[in-house]
Amino acid sequence: MAAPRTPDPNRRNPESTKAILEAALALARDQGWAKVSIEGIAARAGVGKRTIYRWWPSKGAVVLDAYAARLQDRPYMNAAAAEEGDLRGDLVRILGETWDMVSDSLPLLASLIGEAQHDPDLAERLWERLIGPSSEPVQDRIRRAQAAGEITADADPFRAAELLYGQVYLRLLVTPKPLDAAFLEDCIDLALHGLLKRP
Amino acid sequence: MAAPRTPDPNRRNPESTKAILEAALALARDQGWAKVSIEGIAARAGVGKRTIYRWWPSKGAVVLDAYAARLQDRPYMNAAAAEEGDLRGDLVRILGETWDMVSDSLPLLASLIGEAQHDPDLAERLWERLIGPSSEPVQDRIRRAQAAGEITADADPFRAAELLYGQVYLRLLVTPKPLDAAFLEDCIDLALHGLLKRP
Repeated sequence: MAAPRTPDPNRRNPESTKAILEAALALARDQGWAKVSIEGIAARAGVGKRTIYRWWPSKGAVVLDAYAARLQDRPYMNAAAAEEGDLRGDLVRILGETWDMVSDSLPLLASLIGEAQHDPDLAERLWERLIGPSSEPVQDRIRRAQAAGEITADADPFRAAELLYGQVYLRLLVTPKPLDAAFLEDCIDLALHGLLKRP
Repeated sequence: MAAPRTPDPNRRNPESTKAILEAALALARDQGWAKVSIEGIAARAGVGKRTIYRWWPSKGAVVLDAYAARLQDRPYMNAAAAEEGDLRGDLVRILGETWDMVSDSLPLLASLIGEAQHDPDLAERLWERLIGPSSEPVQDRIRRAQAAGEITADADPFRAAELLYGQVYLRLLVTPKPLDAAFLEDCIDLALHGLLKRP
């Protein structure tokens, strides 16, 4: 099926959009990626299939928007404004809040990333709507640590977030070992200290 | 289709195995993941479909074995035995050799990992046959750096490899930025030094 150009999302009906996104997320989490279909989402949301295809080109795009909408409601997206503690403690808090949000739907996040390997449009949406923004609180905190002299001034905050989150995504997508809160703390410590022995 | 239990691979005919693996790799690289099929592999290799289904449960499993067979022929798998230089230089060499091997087929590696998100059997094979072993030269080098006192003795070599390679896989699978030799060197430097300013 040809993917129509998506019209201005601001013109979507807010109630049916909410119903579609809630239905997509519930179906994906309850039944698993392979069983989600545009038909199933439409039936559960009480809208027609055409309403969905008007605004989204694929089931992946709908599920992703549902996931991203949930993300935007979360307090950690305002982490930059939170009262600030020490660097390690703040990173533990930021990753912990992210973790609380996604830990009940990790297979779905992995499925979205898996599907994106064969779907460039979904890959772009996934980055723009979900994964790119999700690392911004960490990057903000790294910038403030640089201003405070804790982190070298020439470190790139984007690369710092890659160092930290790379370990997490590798475990989510590839490595058959536990991905839990203790692992997240270990990722933070390893990224902060690096491998070389300090004098 | 039910996946038959795979019989002892040592009983495979070596010539037809070689032809099947070469055909799978060539098709996957030339035509892209979606267009590879067991039928196409069989036709190109000059064998019957049943020969393939006898030894592999899915097209992903065949392509993976082809990829892994190529890996085993590579000199970097013997990196531990190579003449040793300084830690950073050796890591640059090890990652560079890995990079030379996969840089012409990165989309295929990404497709295998993507497919594995929906196929637990492929996920297990991918780890056991390809991704797990591929980090062993780095882990070996980290162990020798620990013995030499360059790296803290309580660092886990497996976690050290996750810190290093996590950045690479995140960029391969998710982040829309270049993945090239310069990036690999930056990954090594960031993993070695960490984020905290050193005294």
